[in-house]
Amino acid sequence: MTEAKKYIYAFGGNYTEGHGKMKELLGGKGAGLAEMAKIGIPVPAGFTITTEVCTIYLQKGGNYPEEVKQQVAAGLKRTEETMGRKFGDTKDPLLVSVRSGARQSMPGMMETILNVGLTTATIPGLIKRTKNDRFVYDSYRRLIMMYSDVVMEKAAGIEPAEGQGIRQQLEHIMSELKKSKGYKEDKEIPAADLQKLCEIFKAKVHEVLGKAFPDDPVEQLWGAISAVFQSWNGKRAIEYRRIEKIPEDWGTAVNVQSMVFGNMGDTSATGVGFTRNPGTGENVFFGEWLPNAQGEDVVAGIRTPYAINENSKSYANEKLPTLEKAMPDTYRQLIEIRATLEKHYQDMQDIEFTIQEGKLYMLQTRTGKRNGPAAVRMAVDMMKEGLITDKKVAVMRVKPSQLDELLHPIVDAAAEKQVTAIARGLPAGPGAAVGKIVLTAKKAEELGKKEKVILVRTETSPEDVHGMHVSEGILTAKGGMTSHAALIARGWGKCCVVGCGMLDINVDAGTVTIGGLVLHEGDVVTLNGTAGKVYKGAMPVVRIDPEKNEEFRTFMGWCDEIKKIGVRTNADNPKDSVVARKFGAQGIGLCRTEHMFFGPERITAMRKMIMAESQEDREKAVYSLLKYQKEDFLGIFKAMEGLPVIIRLLDPPLHEFVPQESEWEKFSQETGSSIEKIKARVEQLHELNPMLGHRGCRLGIVYPEITRMQARAILEAAAELTKEGVHVIAEIMIPIVGHVKEFVHQKKLVLEEAEQVKKQYGLPNFHFMLGTMIEVPRAAITANEIAQEAEFFSFGTNDLTQMGCGFSRDDAGSFLPQYVQLGIFAADPFQSIDKEGVGLLMRMAIEKGRSVKPNLEIGICGEHGGDPDSVVFCHQINMNYVSCSPFRVPIARLAAAQAQIQYPRA
Amino acid sequence: MTEAKKYIYAFGGNYTEGHGKMKELLGGKGAGLAEMAKIGIPVPAGFTITTEVCTIYLQKGGNYPEEVKQQVAAGLKRTEETMGRKFGDTKDPLLVSVRSGARQSMPGMMETILNVGLTTATIPGLIKRTKNDRFVYDSYRRLIMMYSDVVMEKAAGIEPAEGQGIRQQLEHIMSELKKSKGYKEDKEIPAADLQKLCEIFKAKVHEVLGKAFPDDPVEQLWGAISAVFQSWNGKRAIEYRRIEKIPEDWGTAVNVQSMVFGNMGDTSATGVGFTRNPGTGENVFFGEWLPNAQGEDVVAGIRTPYAINENSKSYANEKLPTLEKAMPDTYRQLIEIRATLEKHYQDMQDIEFTIQEGKLYMLQTRTGKRNGPAAVRMAVDMMKEGLITDKKVAVMRVKPSQLDELLHPIVDAAAEKQVTAIARGLPAGPGAAVGKIVLTAKKAEELGKKEKVILVRTETSPEDVHGMHVSEGILTAKGGMTSHAALIARGWGKCCVVGCGMLDINVDAGTVTIGGLVLHEGDVVTLNGTAGKVYKGAMPVVRIDPEKNEEFRTFMGWCDEIKKIGVRTNADNPKDSVVARKFGAQGIGLCRTEHMFFGPERITAMRKMIMAESQEDREKAVYSLLKYQKEDFLGIFKAMEGLPVIIRLLDPPLHEFVPQESEWEKFSQETGSSIEKIKARVEQLHELNPMLGHRGCRLGIVYPEITRMQARAILEAAAELTKEGVHVIAEIMIPIVGHVKEFVHQKKLVLEEAEQVKKQYGLPNFHFMLGTMIEVPRAAITANEIAQEAEFFSFGTNDLTQMGCGFSRDDAGSFLPQYVQLGIFAADPFQSIDKEGVGLLMRMAIEKGRSVKPNLEIGICGEHGGDPDSVVFCHQINMNYVSCSPFRVPIARLAAAQAQIQYPRA
Repeated sequence: MTEAKKYIYAFGGNYTEGHGKMKELLGGKGAGLAEMAKIGIPVPAGFTITTEVCTIYLQKGGNYPEEVKQQVAAGLKRTEETMGRKFGDTKDPLLVSVRSGARQSMPGMMETILNVGLTTATIPGLIKRTKNDRFVYDSYRRLIMMYSDVVMEKAAGIEPAEGQGIRQQLEHIMSELKKSKGYKEDKEIPAADLQKLCEIFKAKVHEVLGKAFPDDPVEQLWGAISAVFQSWNGKRAIEYRRIEKIPEDWGTAVNVQSMVFGNMGDTSATGVGFTRNPGTGENVFFGEWLPNAQGEDVVAGIRTPYAINENSKSYANEKLPTLEKAMPDTYRQLIEIRATLEKHYQDMQDIEFTIQEGKLYMLQTRTGKRNGPAAVRMAVDMMKEGLITDKKVAVMRVKPSQLDELLHPIVDAAAEKQVTAIARGLPAGPGAAVGKIVLTAKKAEELGKKEKVILVRTETSPEDVHGMHVSEGILTAKGGMTSHAALIARGWGKCCVVGCGMLDINVDAGTVTIGGLVLHEGDVVTLNGTAGKVYKGAMPVVRIDPEKNEEFRTFMGWCDEIKKIGVRTNADNPKDSVVARKFGAQGIGLCRTEHMFFGPERITAMRKMIMAESQEDREKAVYSLLKYQKEDFLGIFKAMEGLPVIIRLLDPPLHEFVPQESEWEKFSQETGSSIEKIKARVEQLHELNPMLGHRGCRLGIVYPEITRMQARAILEAAAELTKEGVHVIAEIMIPIVGHVKEFVHQKKLVLEEAEQVKKQYGLPNFHFMLGTMIEVPRAAITANEIAQEAEFFSFGTNDLTQMGCGFSRDDAGSFLPQYVQLGIFAADPFQSIDKEGVGLLMRMAIEKGRSVKPNLEIGICGEHGGDPDSVVFCHQINMNYVSCSPFRVPIARLAAAQAQIQYPRA
Repeated sequence: MTEAKKYIYAFGGNYTEGHGKMKELLGGKGAGLAEMAKIGIPVPAGFTITTEVCTIYLQKGGNYPEEVKQQVAAGLKRTEETMGRKFGDTKDPLLVSVRSGARQSMPGMMETILNVGLTTATIPGLIKRTKNDRFVYDSYRRLIMMYSDVVMEKAAGIEPAEGQGIRQQLEHIMSELKKSKGYKEDKEIPAADLQKLCEIFKAKVHEVLGKAFPDDPVEQLWGAISAVFQSWNGKRAIEYRRIEKIPEDWGTAVNVQSMVFGNMGDTSATGVGFTRNPGTGENVFFGEWLPNAQGEDVVAGIRTPYAINENSKSYANEKLPTLEKAMPDTYRQLIEIRATLEKHYQDMQDIEFTIQEGKLYMLQTRTGKRNGPAAVRMAVDMMKEGLITDKKVAVMRVKPSQLDELLHPIVDAAAEKQVTAIARGLPAGPGAAVGKIVLTAKKAEELGKKEKVILVRTETSPEDVHGMHVSEGILTAKGGMTSHAALIARGWGKCCVVGCGMLDINVDAGTVTIGGLVLHEGDVVTLNGTAGKVYKGAMPVVRIDPEKNEEFRTFMGWCDEIKKIGVRTNADNPKDSVVARKFGAQGIGLCRTEHMFFGPERITAMRKMIMAESQEDREKAVYSLLKYQKEDFLGIFKAMEGLPVIIRLLDPPLHEFVPQESEWEKFSQETGSSIEKIKARVEQLHELNPMLGHRGCRLGIVYPEITRMQARAILEAAAELTKEGVHVIAEIMIPIVGHVKEFVHQKKLVLEEAEQVKKQYGLPNFHFMLGTMIEVPRAAITANEIAQEAEFFSFGTNDLTQMGCGFSRDDAGSFLPQYVQLGIFAADPFQSIDKEGVGLLMRMAIEKGRSVKPNLEIGICGEHGGDPDSVVFCHQINMNYVSCSPFRVPIARLAAAQAQIQYPRA
């Protein structure tokens, strides 16, 4: 007989079976509880049912592996022993909580049921023991509300309309009761009313769901466990996983843990905290608490939580007592635990605790979410403090998307001084957000695709997640720094202001009233998420100057020490080049030349070229552009002195330079061509599939004068500066090459011009590089041929994705979102390289190219160059550099360093 | 010291250095002369300068390898010895011809110079020997005309306007002389006038070209040799090579051969012939001759040539004497040589001969060009006769393009009986051609791209070649069966009528007058090239029935015995299926379903589906199409009983089913949608790059009901027939798959429908195959993943070329012709598979696919399936079948057999 598989891990007291590294099996919460228990931190005893059970349970359509029942019973028994109480005992019953806990935190996305084990049989015993009938009936009504909603309604297969669920019906009953009796707050409801309420609730549940509320503790327990497992496949959870790219097959663990109560009177309390300030990174304990409350009261944002200490105070709770003052001993104990945890985990922790009649219990510890600036500061501080000793660990502490946050625009401080905020709240997500206000998540989803919106809600709930995702910023009337909105916004690095109590939101009327001011849906506001302020209208926003941010510079320096792959930028003017250099760009990976043709005099020349009827006229028009082009390149080369600059020859089809019909009159005057001729030429230039049309080197082959003129302008600019002593590293790039012979054709023209320029400037050894984009699948698969002629490759992954996958970015909107939802692609291949498909073409091209030229310079200049996942891939396939927009350069540098840490390359 | 490289090969007399297999080095003509000399056929002595010299000469910019001068001198010496005369001798001078001769015949494309060696010093001796001063001065004026045109004008770097060249100027002088003296024909000009004419010619040449006509025989010789080599890179030759796909680097050889004269009086003659009839394949000697003439007179079509025998007579020369009657001994000698040559070469020969004062000389033998019907007949006859003994040889004798000719439409015989031809000529190229008449090659080129044109010329010249190529048919007023027009047309299998003497063509007026009938450029005529008739207007054309053509059936039977790769057809209705079966199709490789949606009731349902606002409405509309689709499939399955039928699910984007704006009113009535809604939907469906848009399985994924309905219709039809005892082999094909997960998604739907159908028809073991197109590059490179799910692959090489090369077929017109001209692509990749690029993707897909499923069925259904070169490639990469349009099936079968012969596959 083989040993039975282990599905249950106990924790607490002297018997803890798991540990902190077992996140895959126990989930984050389970592993944290086990680890805390192991290192002697007081944790209510319990046990974790593994994620494996989740997967099997869901696969088997709701059936457990045989061994589970027995192991749960054994786990429960051990919990009872540790806590000294029995589950279902009529004298001194043990109550338990049943919570989800996935490998990665998914706040609010799955279910939790508290107070499991309260029945008509156990209630009297609990009342007797606690001498607090109000507390017991309050707990019971909470159990009924949660359980009927989470377990029973789902089991009944009922999908109520929004706001019509059993929970809302029970809440309605409760508010009616409060109204009729004149109670303002829940805590004013006396025990007798609560007891009655529980009876009314149970009757209602029976009536609506067709089943009696279970009065057997074991039935309650199993109902709760199954509901939590099922919630892994709930709509909200699936949506969240899609956004966060969490694989379906991870599953969630279930933690069954002894209940402890923060709502047993004034010596009881509950709280949450961060071992450092998650918004700024400052090394101070930061948290919120509520006396005589259960955990959900803090998180739900229904009551304004108190600050745990002076450091944590905000304008909303500055007058309310701190835990430090109210329960100094417990606070000291917490401070010790904070130190223990930080030392143990070597990272900032997000903790939950409950004080039950003066006794402190830790309910959770996990790596604390933080925003970008805080992440960078913590990483740098912890290295300095010696809490961590390896720069690699520090570098891994910041997600590339968090750097993006750090580089987010902020409201211009100078402008802020001129204006008064219309409202103040808590600074839950830093940065600035300007957008039109929308009052529902649905509206946010609709509008957010087209324009920037600010989602304004009384408070947010998991149902709002998708709408929050598309919003530029989030503003709530209720909730604290650990409310749902704050947590979610912080996770995404989104600008967020919460607890802005002066907002009066009327969804039906579509208005937000602030004092005498009435805003309507669609009005523009600006959020300052760093200061917690709201402004009317659009305020100017600025970006931080990376050179002035000490921690940022230190951190990026570590990245540069570690990374192997270079980071260049895409820039086509001197201004962007300067910005990119400040952000650490090591050259220009893509300087597009087409934008240079749009200046007023230039576009006329370009249009004359298009309309030219003879070779001579065409050449004349093209060469009239030479001086402008040369000026452009002089500026860029100077700005990038000493660094390589890749300039791509003209890429878009000619019809992009032709004006709309309404401007033909002017066009006709400019070019001297008749309207009829313009019309005929426009028709001739029209393309059915412009993406696959007459563009890139196909233009330079049919109109060699374009290539000659551009090459001449680049080379003259480079030669001129070289003569002046400026160190220029010029690389000329031929676009849309699919066949080596196309490259050879263009190469000949460029080299002929180069010979002229060498003579003209007396620079016989003048050097530059000549290479090509790899963006046509044919180029990728014949890269060995092309490498024989080209000195460098640069992947144009936008086009390579379009052609390789056979869908145009402009048109894929009608099916690609569905593809991502169906899991056909794990992510939008235009955002993150399709590694298994397009990536294969890239691997092939690199292998074939380097088989001919082992030192071939290979980079990427598509927009994927700024996508962290794609940077890692580019590192893995041994590219020399990635290139991205100036503001994404730091992100790419960090991604590059993390790539080297995870996949070291020689 | 190494031995000097051999650049010169002598032939004739007892000393022949080359042989018939040395075509690469000696060119076709040189090898033929050497071979004839070797087997004892009388050939005027001479020598061949190899093609290697051509390549070196052109590469070195007009310089010869050192050894050449000396070897030419030696060759000349040997020729002098064999012929018993000396080059430049004043008493009995040897004259030579200098002719091109490439590996593959390029009729009229390169230069020839006759009578080289005639100078003021040699003329008196020749007159003395021949006692024929008229002949000598006539030869001299021919030399001056040819030499000044071919050698001197080019060397002077003069590019005269059309009709303004030195040759035309000299011709003008000669016609003025004839006019002034009242001579009608050249032969009436007496010796004295010819002598004066020569002096006037030389003065004119000096005046126009600034250089005296060379009077040194060796200078003449070298001028002629170099001019021939240079003519390899002449515009006409390059153009011809492009059309015929002859590589640039082959080069031409030069043959320097003793002149023999057919114009030395009535016992002299010249002629050309074919050992069998090149137009029908009949096993009879076929040729033309002219007494007292030089070879060029026959070929140029200036005089109507006489028939060589009764078999060769046409209406144009039926009253003129035959060689058989006029010179019976010589004719017998020719008949013997004909037999010798056919036996020796085991193929039909194209010969040139000259009779000089009763003595027969063979000037050339080469494989004779023939049209399609003749090629098939000769191949079959020669096998029967035992002239060839291997079916493989017979099968290699017919070019796939010749089969195309055989399958060409012909004028409907029934219709011909009702109408009288407006003109009769010689049947130079069989088949029918209907088109608008054009009178210049330039006009043909312009119009021929857009519509069908018939090029009508007095006679054609090499300058007309490009215009001839784009024309549907060619009609000339002059020339015989071996005239330029006839030769070229026969080579291309083009319909052609020559020597139609009643045509009076006025290019300037744009008219063709035939008796009292005046046709204008643009009027439509019909040519019957098989009978040599011209009709006014468009006559009905029909195709031959392959089942009734005995030789065709025999020949195709041999192909089928040999070939390894299957040949299916692309057909989407029962009629085409029946035709294709007759043509030997072994199944349907591609049945498109989109055409089935265009019937009047169907399109309405389709449009309702497009406008549907609910899932329910959409399904209702889609399922209303089920019965129609099922009917279609019933018909096709029946027609293809016992053979596999691949049906592709809907491929084009939905906007293709939406009518133009002018029909929206009707559309609105049909669908019940308002015009506003239609407008909005049309805008929504509009795509920037429809080729890369929402099509193929992307439709079936977003609208699963389309896939379900189509699968249901196919499977129900197949099941219904199976129950009736019809042997149905159904294969369902999913288009535009790029990711295996797309296939899996669609597969699930199809299999679910299949389960239903199995139950519905009580056929638990009902079998069909489910596969995919490989047309997206991503599919090709991830074919191993797709092969795990798919049962067959079919290459959609149209899309694979578009996506792989990154150019759309609709838009590539603006650069692809130039690409082919520049040699970037050897051929249009949409006509013939780009083997090195797209072909690599195909190889990869096959290798990866079969690595997973070794017996994976793989075919091709793009239009390349009917292109012979592409069929060979498909054979080489081990496909199971190709699929092409019904009328190309025989061509594919032949190409498949030839592929197996050339590249045997197990």
